[in-house]
Amino acid sequence: MMRTIDWVNGAVEIIDQTALPGELRILRLHTVGELIAAIQSLAVRGAPALGVAGGFGVALAARVHGDDPAALALAVRKIESARPTAVNLARGAQRAAVLLPHGPEAVLTEAFAIRDEEIVASQAMATLGADLVVELCGARPRLLTHCNTGGLAAVTIGTALGVVGELHRRDRLAGVIASETRPLLQGARLTSWELARWGIEHRVAVDSAGPFLMARGEVDAVILGADRICANGDVINKIGTYSHALGAQRAGIPFLVVAPESTVDLDTPSGAQVEIEDRGAGEVTAFGDAVNPAFDITPHDLVTAIVTDRRVIRVDRGEKP
Amino acid sequence: MMRTIDWVNGAVEIIDQTALPGELRILRLHTVGELIAAIQSLAVRGAPALGVAGGFGVALAARVHGDDPAALALAVRKIESARPTAVNLARGAQRAAVLLPHGPEAVLTEAFAIRDEEIVASQAMATLGADLVVELCGARPRLLTHCNTGGLAAVTIGTALGVVGELHRRDRLAGVIASETRPLLQGARLTSWELARWGIEHRVAVDSAGPFLMARGEVDAVILGADRICANGDVINKIGTYSHALGAQRAGIPFLVVAPESTVDLDTPSGAQVEIEDRGAGEVTAFGDAVNPAFDITPHDLVTAIVTDRRVIRVDRGEKP
Repeated sequence: MMRTIDWVNGAVEIIDQTALPGELRILRLHTVGELIAAIQSLAVRGAPALGVAGGFGVALAARVHGDDPAALALAVRKIESARPTAVNLARGAQRAAVLLPHGPEAVLTEAFAIRDEEIVASQAMATLGADLVVELCGARPRLLTHCNTGGLAAVTIGTALGVVGELHRRDRLAGVIASETRPLLQGARLTSWELARWGIEHRVAVDSAGPFLMARGEVDAVILGADRICANGDVINKIGTYSHALGAQRAGIPFLVVAPESTVDLDTPSGAQVEIEDRGAGEVTAFGDAVNPAFDITPHDLVTAIVTDRRVIRVDRGEKP
Repeated sequence: MMRTIDWVNGAVEIIDQTALPGELRILRLHTVGELIAAIQSLAVRGAPALGVAGGFGVALAARVHGDDPAALALAVRKIESARPTAVNLARGAQRAAVLLPHGPEAVLTEAFAIRDEEIVASQAMATLGADLVVELCGARPRLLTHCNTGGLAAVTIGTALGVVGELHRRDRLAGVIASETRPLLQGARLTSWELARWGIEHRVAVDSAGPFLMARGEVDAVILGADRICANGDVINKIGTYSHALGAQRAGIPFLVVAPESTVDLDTPSGAQVEIEDRGAGEVTAFGDAVNPAFDITPHDLVTAIVTDRRVIRVDRGEKP
C-alpha cells in the first residue's frame, strides 16, 4: 500500500500533494529547510502525516547538525512551528527530539515508531469508525466528508476516509459526497483521487452545499477528521467543518470526527485557546484582500462522537476526550 | 450610472458577467436564442436583472415573430423557462407577453416599465435597508454578503449590495466580507469588482468561512438577496445562503434578505415547492461527478427580516410576505 510519507535511503520521501490529481510526483527531501517548505506549501499535510513529518524532520536535523546543539535546537523549533494549528507536528518533533542525546539512529528509530503507530492507528480507526457508523446510521449510509482524510493525510488508509473505505469493503456504503474544500480543494483534488483509486463512486459538492444537501435528506452522517481535539471536545479542523456541523445539527444527523489519539490535546482546554492559521489572500482571490482562516472551531455540543484508534468518545452523551 | 442590462438601438445590451473582473465587455443580443444563451451561461444573472431580461426577451420575440403566433408562444415559453428558480424571469416575460396583442412597441414599452421599476425599487431598498441595518446593528456595522446583489444583479444600484453602498455613503459602514460564492465566484469576481468601483474596502472569504467568522465575532449582520421569496417567508437564494443563515442564528446576529417585491411569490407556499436548478458537474470539478444545486432554501425561522422596495417584513416577529 502506498505511503504518503516515508524515510527512504537517508531522505524523507513524500507524495507531492500540490501536484495531485494531475501528477503522482514523489519529492525527496534531504534537509530541514526542504521539509519545512514542503509542510508550508502543503505538499505534505494532514494531522497524522504532519506528526510523522515532525519526527522525520528531527531525524534529518540530527544527521546534519548532530555536533552543534544550538543549531539542532533551532532546527527542532523551526520544525515544530512550521504550521501552528495541528498539534501533531510539534508533538512528533518533540517526541523524536527527546532521543537526540542518543544520536541520529535513535532519533530515526523513534521517527519510524511514530510512522508505524500512525499506520496501526489508521486500521484501528477504520474498524471502530465503521462499526459506529453502522450502529448510528443503519445498513447502507450515505456520508458527507470534508477536506482530505485518506492515506494522503496519514501514512496509509487515513482517518475519516479510512472509515469510508472500510464501509465500502464491508459493502455497507450507499454514497459519498466529497466537499471540495476551498481554497485549496483538498476534497475535489485529493479525496476524489483517493476514492477513485479505491473504486468508490462519489460526488463532489461545493462546501456551502453541504448543509443544504443534509437538509434535503441526501446525507445520513457527516464524517471528517481533526487537526486538534481539545480537552472539552471542541474540534479544530479544516475551515468549513463548523458549517457542516451546523448543518448536521439542524438536519438531525450524526456528526462524527475520526482522528488518532495523537491529535487529542488535553493541554488545550477549549477551541478558544488554539491559534488559527491565516494563510493570506493569495490562496483565495487574485482580486483584492481576503480573510483566510485555514481552520475553524466546532464547539463540542455539535459533535456526536469522536473516534480515535483506541476508543469511541460519545460527546453527545457528555463524554470528554 | 452604468446599467447591467438595457435596450439600445433595437437590441438588448448586457454587461457580460462571465468576463468580469478581467474585462468590462458589452454584449449585444439580437435574437431570443442569443438572449437565452446569455441567461443560461450567466452572462446576465441576478433575479431583478432576469426580470428585465424576460421583458426584453419577449420584446425581441415580438419583433422577429410578430406575424407567427405559434412561434411567438414558443419563444415566450423558452424565455420563461431558460432558468427555473428565480421567479422574476418568468414573471417579467409573462408581463410583457400580455401586451403581445398590441404589437411590438407596446411590448417594448412594458419591458421598459419593468426596467424602470427595478431602478426605482433598488433606490427604495437601499434606503429602507440601510435604515434597518442601523436600527438593528448600531452605528458602524460590519456586514457579510454572499453572491452578487449589486448593480450587476439588478439594473443599477442592486439589492443587498445597494444597502451596503448606501451605508457607505452615510459613513455608517465598518467593514464588508464578500463570500466568494462557489462554484462561479460571483462574490470574489463581481461583488469585489463593484465594491472596488464604489471605493469600499472589503475582504473576500471562502464560503465555508462565513459561519466561523460570525462565531469569532467579526460580523454584525448577514445581508444578501433572494431569487424567490415564498409565501411563508422561506428564501430561495444562491447556494451557501442557508449555511450563512445557520451561522447567523448560532452567532445571534441578524440575517437580512433584500429583494424587490417582484421576487415575492405568494403562489409558492414554501421552499419545498421550488425547483432547485442543478447546473451539472462541469462548474464544480474537472475530476469526476458532482452534485451542484445552484440555490438553496433558507427556512423562514432563520430569517430576521426581508426588505423589499415597499416594506420591511419582520419575519422574526411572525410577519409574512
